[in-house]
Amino acid sequence: MNPVLIFDKQAKSWINYDPTTDFPIQNIPLGIFSISGGPKKVCTIIGDTIIDLHGLSEYRILNVALFKTSDFEQDYLNPILQKGKSSLRELRKDIFELFESGNKFVNKDLCKLNFYKREEVTLHLPVKPGNYTDFYSSREHATNVGTMFRDPANALLPNWLHLPVAYHGRASSIVVSGTDIIRPKGQMVLNEGEAPVFGPSRQLDIELEMAFVVGRGNRLGHPIPVSEAEDHIQGLLIFNDWSARDIQKWEYVPLGPFLAKNFASTVSPWLVDLDALQSFKVQGPVPEKPLLDYLKQDEASNYDVHLEVVLKTSNGDENIICRSNMKYLYWSMSQQLAHHTVNGCNMESGDFCASGTISGPTPDSFGSLLELAWKGTRPLQMKDGTTRTFLQDGDTIIMRAYAQNESYRIGFGECRGRIIPAL
Amino acid sequence: MNPVLIFDKQAKSWINYDPTTDFPIQNIPLGIFSISGGPKKVCTIIGDTIIDLHGLSEYRILNVALFKTSDFEQDYLNPILQKGKSSLRELRKDIFELFESGNKFVNKDLCKLNFYKREEVTLHLPVKPGNYTDFYSSREHATNVGTMFRDPANALLPNWLHLPVAYHGRASSIVVSGTDIIRPKGQMVLNEGEAPVFGPSRQLDIELEMAFVVGRGNRLGHPIPVSEAEDHIQGLLIFNDWSARDIQKWEYVPLGPFLAKNFASTVSPWLVDLDALQSFKVQGPVPEKPLLDYLKQDEASNYDVHLEVVLKTSNGDENIICRSNMKYLYWSMSQQLAHHTVNGCNMESGDFCASGTISGPTPDSFGSLLELAWKGTRPLQMKDGTTRTFLQDGDTIIMRAYAQNESYRIGFGECRGRIIPAL
Repeated sequence: MNPVLIFDKQAKSWINYDPTTDFPIQNIPLGIFSISGGPKKVCTIIGDTIIDLHGLSEYRILNVALFKTSDFEQDYLNPILQKGKSSLRELRKDIFELFESGNKFVNKDLCKLNFYKREEVTLHLPVKPGNYTDFYSSREHATNVGTMFRDPANALLPNWLHLPVAYHGRASSIVVSGTDIIRPKGQMVLNEGEAPVFGPSRQLDIELEMAFVVGRGNRLGHPIPVSEAEDHIQGLLIFNDWSARDIQKWEYVPLGPFLAKNFASTVSPWLVDLDALQSFKVQGPVPEKPLLDYLKQDEASNYDVHLEVVLKTSNGDENIICRSNMKYLYWSMSQQLAHHTVNGCNMESGDFCASGTISGPTPDSFGSLLELAWKGTRPLQMKDGTTRTFLQDGDTIIMRAYAQNESYRIGFGECRGRIIPAL
Repeated sequence: MNPVLIFDKQAKSWINYDPTTDFPIQNIPLGIFSISGGPKKVCTIIGDTIIDLHGLSEYRILNVALFKTSDFEQDYLNPILQKGKSSLRELRKDIFELFESGNKFVNKDLCKLNFYKREEVTLHLPVKPGNYTDFYSSREHATNVGTMFRDPANALLPNWLHLPVAYHGRASSIVVSGTDIIRPKGQMVLNEGEAPVFGPSRQLDIELEMAFVVGRGNRLGHPIPVSEAEDHIQGLLIFNDWSARDIQKWEYVPLGPFLAKNFASTVSPWLVDLDALQSFKVQGPVPEKPLLDYLKQDEASNYDVHLEVVLKTSNGDENIICRSNMKYLYWSMSQQLAHHTVNGCNMESGDFCASGTISGPTPDSFGSLLELAWKGTRPLQMKDGTTRTFLQDGDTIIMRAYAQNESYRIGFGECRGRIIPAL
């Protein structure tokens, strides 16, 4: 494994961008785009400029060992992920060098033939996950839910502090930012003890999560040690785990959430490389209970990534309803991956593992409407005078995420979805 | 959609076979085979004869509209499933006519160049599932588990009679019959209230299930009505949902089983077409509670498929530990699929939906060791003098399934796995 690739903090690009951009030259995320129904291709973004990597390769401006031009004409990034972390480091390094302001030799005019504005392209689901797992790794979230639905004095279940609780989610219904979300129908019990009725969910909610994407998998039967876990994580996405609370409440015992979640999940379109976040590592919460050996980690493994959620009402007002941070997670991604595979379960390249709702310690940092409006008892005030306990048709949710230092921001773009009425 | 294809009950093949074979000419299941490390190809089986469909196509003996020879050289059946149910009907019909005893025009010598004995070939996982869902559709099983772990007076949870409870399982670790199963390690609590320890599972179990394989999927947001569900089901497999009960007990609240299941599941190698089972349809149990409209079915939708489980001890003795039947399922496959998609969840071609443990009404028909040995209190007697409450290293589990009429048997072959010690 090559050493982690961290670009020069002071570097600038000859592509102009605002210093607050999510996509400085230190980011270089990968995505999939198309133009007016044409073939899907691999791209990156610097500032507001979307860059066609297939075009750069075709013009031989980008010439990376192990990458053929056809590798950049793909429906998903999966075949590129399968090339391995060191190949992706080479690719991102070559892109960095090409667009770094000190590059005297580049033919900028030829490069610009492969530049697009955001509004000229369609961004697609970047990775097709074979398997998707959802963790439950925020102590604050688990405590809030336990307090509301079980017992405030014993809000956390006995296993929670010993292992990163998780369940399998539905991979097929993961969609890219910008996809409308049809309000799901299902069974729900309107009054305790009555028979269930069928209809559109009345308690449609969000869950603010981050997901990691597996690069290299592991063989069935062969666990990934916690110390090697990051070698298997290629990058991250924002993840909105839409949840129908009324369907969930009725269906979830004893085997967990099912139809309450699998109608759709939304991800942001850019795979932000784990390398780009390395200088934002921070120590996570100190474990309260002694950890079993396979979960012990020697190094800081949390990431200081600011998160925010906007609820945009149908009149266009943007209401920031949550500010949280990925650093609050009790269980790190490395611990999640070590736990997931400790029984021999095999991860496949392209698999998604989402964090679970990331709630912080204060009420304005809770990552779901369930918590923000505290089970409907504290409606959220919108700028247009209306209130929310759950989502209304026409509401748009926009999640944003970024790591920030004194020089630049590593951002994720948007994870956006609008609720449209049930069919 | 063409009408269901049911072959003549009296038909015989010019390939000789024993009348008790799982694979008469009325079956024509599909599988994937290879010979000594060569490429994977599509095959079928009649009696004990494995038939290379790629070879038959190459020799132009098999010449089916919409199938190219290269379609039969595939790692999995998925591309063939995507051709749709009517194409698969054409294929199975052409194979039937080719090998039916009345066929006067066939060049048998040329056919025989594509015949193999079972021991000459390796059978592989027939379909690579994109998504795998596990239902919990046996009332007897749910009642047994509820009685053992909760309250005998209220063994079924309130939702159980209103909807087919299900959860998402792990698709990546599904393996084909014959694959050794490494005993998983994980966290478990040895004495109530103590801290968890880490080690090999001491309560490794089986679950006797049948899984259906999705042929044509549905668009996200667009449910499959119960009356159309069978148009989307291509065929069935035997499914052993290996389960580590001690890991399960500790981890499963509140989000369901995870590491207790996802270390491995085993399937039988032959995709038995739903058409081949049409004459074995029977009425299922009468619903005890009124069903919501989307779950009401007008026709008999259960299948009379005999199931048995053999525990083969390391000395070679075969002990039949369970005889059950798929007809006991309270929720039919059609109801399962209608429920799964009623919220808009999209099924993809190749997805697996397993039934959950199929237990019958009598103690010798229970589909797991947990139930058969009643939580360890009634050890099972083996022929070699040993007893079992859960699986020991060296034990082999063989599941068999078949539908039987007065003329022939539509069988599934074996779903076999041997337990090897934890790493």
